Amino acid sequence: MSDLPRSVEFHEEGPREGFQIERTLYPLGRRAALIEALAASGLKQVQVGSFVSPKAVPTMADTADLFGAIRKREGVRYTALWLNEAGFRRAAATPGVDLDGKLIFYTTDAFCQKNNGCSAAEQRERQATWARLYLDAGVPLDKAYILTAFGCNFEGDVPLERVLDDVRFVVDLAAELKMPLPVIYLADTVGWGNPEAIRRMIGAVRELVPEARIGTHLHDTRGIGAANVLAALQMGVSLFDSSIAGLGGCPFAKHANVQGAGNICTEDMAFMCEEMGIETGLDLEALIEAALLAEDIIGRPLSGKLMHAGLPKRKPLSV
Amino acid sequence: MSDLPRSVEFHEEGPREGFQIERTLYPLGRRAALIEALAASGLKQVQVGSFVSPKAVPTMADTADLFGAIRKREGVRYTALWLNEAGFRRAAATPGVDLDGKLIFYTTDAFCQKNNGCSAAEQRERQATWARLYLDAGVPLDKAYILTAFGCNFEGDVPLERVLDDVRFVVDLAAELKMPLPVIYLADTVGWGNPEAIRRMIGAVRELVPEARIGTHLHDTRGIGAANVLAALQMGVSLFDSSIAGLGGCPFAKHANVQGAGNICTEDMAFMCEEMGIETGLDLEALIEAALLAEDIIGRPLSGKLMHAGLPKRKPLSV
Repeated sequence: MSDLPRSVEFHEEGPREGFQIERTLYPLGRRAALIEALAASGLKQVQVGSFVSPKAVPTMADTADLFGAIRKREGVRYTALWLNEAGFRRAAATPGVDLDGKLIFYTTDAFCQKNNGCSAAEQRERQATWARLYLDAGVPLDKAYILTAFGCNFEGDVPLERVLDDVRFVVDLAAELKMPLPVIYLADTVGWGNPEAIRRMIGAVRELVPEARIGTHLHDTRGIGAANVLAALQMGVSLFDSSIAGLGGCPFAKHANVQGAGNICTEDMAFMCEEMGIETGLDLEALIEAALLAEDIIGRPLSGKLMHAGLPKRKPLSV
Repeated sequence: MSDLPRSVEFHEEGPREGFQIERTLYPLGRRAALIEALAASGLKQVQVGSFVSPKAVPTMADTADLFGAIRKREGVRYTALWLNEAGFRRAAATPGVDLDGKLIFYTTDAFCQKNNGCSAAEQRERQATWARLYLDAGVPLDKAYILTAFGCNFEGDVPLERVLDDVRFVVDLAAELKMPLPVIYLADTVGWGNPEAIRRMIGAVRELVPEARIGTHLHDTRGIGAANVLAALQMGVSLFDSSIAGLGGCPFAKHANVQGAGNICTEDMAFMCEEMGIETGLDLEALIEAALLAEDIIGRPLSGKLMHAGLPKRKPLSV
């Protein structure tokens, strides 16, 4: 019936996904406290912020300072996002950043132009440069993200073949540079995915590159994120990006807000896995605490549900 | 891999589930307009309200008047809830109520006491009386709900065997009265279900009574409702209770609010099915309109996501 993994790993995106879309610059100390709470829950990777244009994303401008403010926990990777070489160099120059060599592909020109200022083909060629940059810096090639893998708000449906083309490029590049194959992350950047599309896409990538580890970066834009996670689990996926409390969007906007919609919710998805008997290595109570802290910092209700309902209270059964 | 149905039916619970938990009595005309909007979207069954104690649930006290206010649409069943014989008699005496002969079972005494004022065993015996009442009134036996089938806030985990006992009781009762077997509804009343539990439970019920049609009544208490729906779909379930905009709970309560948490969201789940190629017979744009109307009536943000994100905008692909 399915190929459920025995254990899964959640990579926390909330501190970046959640705060990059805000207009307010929340106090650095509170954001550091949130990151510490997340690491304390058992999460092994937390994305702290972005080294991107401070003009484009003013709330990420103090990412280097934020790295300096965190009390680190051993065994946890504190990562950052960058979208160009200059960003990587800033990240590399910042003490405390755990550099994960990541490649970023786009399936459509329109989204790539908007996010990265070039065509998808140009971006792809740039990834060869990024990979060499990582090689020179001694940073292992870790992840290859394929953004808008399931659809794009500007260009609509995305043919599977476009995603597979990027996967082939990654495989060839890694072989050429004699670097290990990175994890292939299928990203449903704007929430177009559905369980059947996820099943088909993962199946096709696995068929093409059976040795690849596949991860997903899913958004709960249209309320089916949990089902998409289940579909990925059933295809054996054991690596998920997620955001505490479902951070990353404003679900209360009255108007179409598709780009800003939040990631799948870390604690809700970890709860699901644990209930299904899949190990997460996470302390759900600690995650709920972190989620409530996130809500307190943001100052409005967040979309996570477990944080509001609480864990089921298991008692000895009355017979 | 799975036994997905070709088409599914959603039974709308929002007008009852959503408004019964409110302290405010919202204007009757607006509630009637919501019901009309729901019926206009293609939904074939809408639960309008409850014939229960007006002291216990004051916002359902005007259910008979609400039935009188709705402009009916042909082919739509306008149903109501009752929890005892007196309630059924009031429903039967109210013009315009489509009577669906329903039985209600509880898996735990504590929840049954709280909801129905008797033990689960007493409630079960009462169901034999209810069935005879329906027979006498010429009302077909339509549904048998097994509440808290996946767990209970008061008694904890519920053994599968308790659910199967109720199913056996229903089968025997229907045979004894020479009434057709009703749909067996497995209700995750307080949001304890997970995809694996749902798979196991549906499998066990189907093994016991292969001829039974199974429906689910799921709540999205802990953010995994969509995954639970997917698990049920994969087991071939094609009947779902749901609530427009995810009505039925206040996701913004800071404190544990497990009993009040909303149903799975009609339009989000219908969207998922349609995207997966499963027919719903529903007009998603019309459902979104109804969801926005529900939000406008309630006057605070509701948890449905598609209503805020909008449908994906499909465009011809640029090649």
